[in-house]
Amino acid sequence: MTTVAFLGLGIMGRPMAVNLVSAGFAVVGYSRRPESADPVVRAGGRAATSIADAVAQADVVALMLPDGPDVEAVLTGEQGVFDSVRPGTLIVDFSSISPATSRELARRAAERGLRMLDAPVSGGEAGAIEGTLSIMIGGAEEDVERLRPLFEAVGATVQRVGDHGAGQSVKAANQLIVAGAIQLVAEAIKLLEALDVDLDAALRVINGGLAGSKVLDRKAAAMLKRDFTPGFRAELHHKDLGIVTAAARDASLPLPLGNAVAQLMAALVAQGRGSLDHGALLAVLDDLTAARGTEAANGAEARRRHEGITK
Amino acid sequence: MTTVAFLGLGIMGRPMAVNLVSAGFAVVGYSRRPESADPVVRAGGRAATSIADAVAQADVVALMLPDGPDVEAVLTGEQGVFDSVRPGTLIVDFSSISPATSRELARRAAERGLRMLDAPVSGGEAGAIEGTLSIMIGGAEEDVERLRPLFEAVGATVQRVGDHGAGQSVKAANQLIVAGAIQLVAEAIKLLEALDVDLDAALRVINGGLAGSKVLDRKAAAMLKRDFTPGFRAELHHKDLGIVTAAARDASLPLPLGNAVAQLMAALVAQGRGSLDHGALLAVLDDLTAARGTEAANGAEARRRHEGITK
Amino acid sequence: MTTVAFLGLGIMGRPMAVNLVSAGFAVVGYSRRPESADPVVRAGGRAATSIADAVAQADVVALMLPDGPDVEAVLTGEQGVFDSVRPGTLIVDFSSISPATSRELARRAAERGLRMLDAPVSGGEAGAIEGTLSIMIGGAEEDVERLRPLFEAVGATVQRVGDHGAGQSVKAANQLIVAGAIQLVAEAIKLLEALDVDLDAALRVINGGLAGSKVLDRKAAAMLKRDFTPGFRAELHHKDLGIVTAAARDASLPLPLGNAVAQLMAALVAQGRGSLDHGALLAVLDDLTAARGTEAANGAEARRRHEGITK
Amino acid sequence: MTTVAFLGLGIMGRPMAVNLVSAGFAVVGYSRRPESADPVVRAGGRAATSIADAVAQADVVALMLPDGPDVEAVLTGEQGVFDSVRPGTLIVDFSSISPATSRELARRAAERGLRMLDAPVSGGEAGAIEGTLSIMIGGAEEDVERLRPLFEAVGATVQRVGDHGAGQSVKAANQLIVAGAIQLVAEAIKLLEALDVDLDAALRVINGGLAGSKVLDRKAAAMLKRDFTPGFRAELHHKDLGIVTAAARDASLPLPLGNAVAQLMAALVAQGRGSLDHGALLAVLDDLTAARGTEAANGAEARRRHEGITK
Repeated sequence: MTTVAFLGLGIMGRPMAVNLVSAGFAVVGYSRRPESADPVVRAGGRAATSIADAVAQADVVALMLPDGPDVEAVLTGEQGVFDSVRPGTLIVDFSSISPATSRELARRAAERGLRMLDAPVSGGEAGAIEGTLSIMIGGAEEDVERLRPLFEAVGATVQRVGDHGAGQSVKAANQLIVAGAIQLVAEAIKLLEALDVDLDAALRVINGGLAGSKVLDRKAAAMLKRDFTPGFRAELHHKDLGIVTAAARDASLPLPLGNAVAQLMAALVAQGRGSLDHGALLAVLDDLTAARGTEAANGAEARRRHEGITK
Repeated sequence: MTTVAFLGLGIMGRPMAVNLVSAGFAVVGYSRRPESADPVVRAGGRAATSIADAVAQADVVALMLPDGPDVEAVLTGEQGVFDSVRPGTLIVDFSSISPATSRELARRAAERGLRMLDAPVSGGEAGAIEGTLSIMIGGAEEDVERLRPLFEAVGATVQRVGDHGAGQSVKAANQLIVAGAIQLVAEAIKLLEALDVDLDAALRVINGGLAGSKVLDRKAAAMLKRDFTPGFRAELHHKDLGIVTAAARDASLPLPLGNAVAQLMAALVAQGRGSLDHGALLAVLDDLTAARGTEAANGAEARRRHEGITK
Repeated sequence: MTTVAFLGLGIMGRPMAVNLVSAGFAVVGYSRRPESADPVVRAGGRAATSIADAVAQADVVALMLPDGPDVEAVLTGEQGVFDSVRPGTLIVDFSSISPATSRELARRAAERGLRMLDAPVSGGEAGAIEGTLSIMIGGAEEDVERLRPLFEAVGATVQRVGDHGAGQSVKAANQLIVAGAIQLVAEAIKLLEALDVDLDAALRVINGGLAGSKVLDRKAAAMLKRDFTPGFRAELHHKDLGIVTAAARDASLPLPLGNAVAQLMAALVAQGRGSLDHGALLAVLDDLTAARGTEAANGAEARRRHEGITK
Repeated sequence: MTTVAFLGLGIMGRPMAVNLVSAGFAVVGYSRRPESADPVVRAGGRAATSIADAVAQADVVALMLPDGPDVEAVLTGEQGVFDSVRPGTLIVDFSSISPATSRELARRAAERGLRMLDAPVSGGEAGAIEGTLSIMIGGAEEDVERLRPLFEAVGATVQRVGDHGAGQSVKAANQLIVAGAIQLVAEAIKLLEALDVDLDAALRVINGGLAGSKVLDRKAAAMLKRDFTPGFRAELHHKDLGIVTAAARDASLPLPLGNAVAQLMAALVAQGRGSLDHGALLAVLDDLTAARGTEAANGAEARRRHEGITK
């Protein structure tokens, strides 16, 4: 029986760890907040008291953390994974971080005789719960094959896309498309609301044609109701778009829509709405068209100042 | 047996008319280019020699024309549809035109005792051939119901979305999303090409997650090969985006991504590439990153002029 | 002594008419709001009771109206200018309207034996008061020369730029640059406010280099204080940007910055801030970065839901 | 007599060093390319054989280098400035680098008892030759005062804008405005070329009004002729816009126009045109509207495939 240490039991990590238990893996979960491990324990896993405790007996160490510095700290910090694992342990990082950081960590792992895969996922909380994530993997083919049963326990699409860092590169492209697709749906909703149409019927028929997408399937209805409960937090998507725009800049590559939506996601974060779902891009458009009390009054005054031949 | 006059037998109209014949309708086809009616005749329909000839005995008149002025000319011109149909004839306009023109034509039809529906479609040439179009319909509910068998002969999703013009409004929102989705895929392809990944695998796994879409299903593979055979011509999509941006402007509605992609589609048309598939948005990005011969040389010279302490 | 009928006595027209009086012209002013003519009368002009009354004895008819439909109504409406002037009267339209409308009105004037110039201005209320406007003129060279004393009474830069409509085309390009320049200053202010610099000193030194501009000279200080008293109303600039984007669309010309700022100006109008000064583009950026009460709370709740290994 | 070591004798540094000689400073110039020091020697300065040689007897060390890593290498590298100067030497960095790097280098200088100012400039090659640069300075007020005669020998506007790094922050805002202003002029030129106007007259009258700017004064004429000889190289402006977008991202600040023009500048660099003048932004627009040979043919073929009732 393969023993998996699972580090990071947030919205995504927790259901993934539970699915691994269900698929027959021996799972040792660790989170900085001990109560986060409860669902894993209830499912039949074990809660570790430290990173070192979690990984000591593991065959595989899985990570699902918010950002690159978190992954770096957990792997290379004192009493971290690199210090505590058995030689030959395979590390699989499900986090979404920059391709450059991912490559660098794989290099440092190799120096210690450890093998590593970057395996960011797409599909959101629903995909994590249902075990239907899309997993985009960078690293050695043989390591991907060795972990295929594990990947298939949490994902429906398991795809190696290249060497170390390639998974992260593909995730960046994925997040570019997702952010843009949400913004397009937001713009379409605003346009439909401004015109006189049956909104539910409209989104249904649009989704039936070439405009059809998973974003329309899964997010449009909540957006229409301005329900921005995450789901996937805007501040994480903001971080991902930072990876996208930095990669594009390194390649002197213009991304007209990618950069435009990155601006709008930055606005969401600047407004203190970073913990809302990324569908809250619609709220930025709502702001841009909402009447402003004070200034409107100010405007009325200004208008009185203005006298002309017409109106 | 219902007799349908079908006016406009282009890439979309021809297969739609053929599908109506197959579904048991008596179809009389008319096109300015007589040979365009051949497939309809081979399927069992009849070719008319004029608009008047086509519509004289029709129960239903269907139109599938490039733009508003075409529809207006065919309906209201001398010897046009309004002059030639029997009272009570139902006119269904599958063309994509502006909501305002559509409403105005419905009003003028009503003045003559004619009933009208706007019924633009999505799904492209493939959807027209397979009879799986999405049809977004504006007009009276009873007229939609009366024509439901006709709609179901050409489409898989048949949806009334409001009164006269509402079909066009929804089509505008649809075209906004489609153009944006193509541009996002183009940007993702450029990003993936700049990084070191397996492109086919990457697009497959991206399509398996929240970024999944019909545009990825149907267009990404051809775009990757720079095969821009239409499909749906950029110049028609340019026209559609003109409807989108005009509607947004009338509503003082900012559409950051919609307007950005409208600019890029305009560039395609300005470059004389308007008859390529709209997937050629990728060609604009290719241009923006392709090395320029003469100027590069010019640049080298300029560089020689520049002397500094470092590189 | 040349008699000038001046139609339209708003923020711009009023001081222009007064300057014409000061320069020795016999000025007959008309506005739909009679009190608007008071300053002209105080300066030594006459107030007319109707358009017909104003233009009946005029050698030159000058117009300064908000938009094309206003100009069209005043010229071609019943009891309008075309019906009431003496043959050979020269009409000079200072309004900013679309080049196409301008050409069409010149054509209709010519049919009646009237001569016309389009002569939109730049320089704002201050330029109108000081008589230092820039005037961009379309029409016959001899007519421009004939009116040169009149133009020099209201403007510092008087320039014929081509045939009928050319003045409007140049004004469109002018308004594109002005809107963009204001938005750039707004973005620079936000950036400087986010960093730790002495704002007044910063804007002063920026204005001393290649970034220097009239917009920095005249508008940056008020913008910094969020004083958006017009000046030039955003809703008029929104109208002008509609002319810009329509002209660009007709030419299939992408205007990446022009269209982006047109979106933001549309947002201002949608927010009911259309009667503020166009410098209020900064207020849109303020919105995009201002903390949102309710949603921030919503976000805090969402954050509580989220548990992870870090933070 | 104050001895100034001047490190970096490129397009900007060379004339600045010459102006210091003319103003009575004892100047020791150093460049990796010895011949770059020739004009300084001819003016009465001395050429050094190494950084150490240049700075050993200097009261002030001035730097004018392309980017942050260059500055870091020259200051902190082996046999670099920090290793070779006398205690108490004042270092003034005219280079444009990131505010964060600037602050960090000032901190490391202070650890060694050295004082430092960041003093990036605006005004281009012409401003450097004429000694009319705008200088935006970060650091201690007393150090700025001590160096005022030096600053006034090379610049017309000398302004302290805050503490260490503030000069760079203001330069970033400056470069945002300059890039945007050039792009706006490029868009206006394209619009005017598409319409039928006298281009020289048009730009003259535009420059007379609120749209007036130094960019119109100095760059529009060359742009109109498509003369893209630098001047200021696009690749350096691309670097500067990287500083702008990174600073904006750190502050979660959306910069709609700043980011849009950064994309277009990136395109210039990707096209191998980085060593052209930044006015070559117009060449990108030219590309976006230039007819494409092969694809146009391809398009003609596609058009033949398409048959419809109209055209």
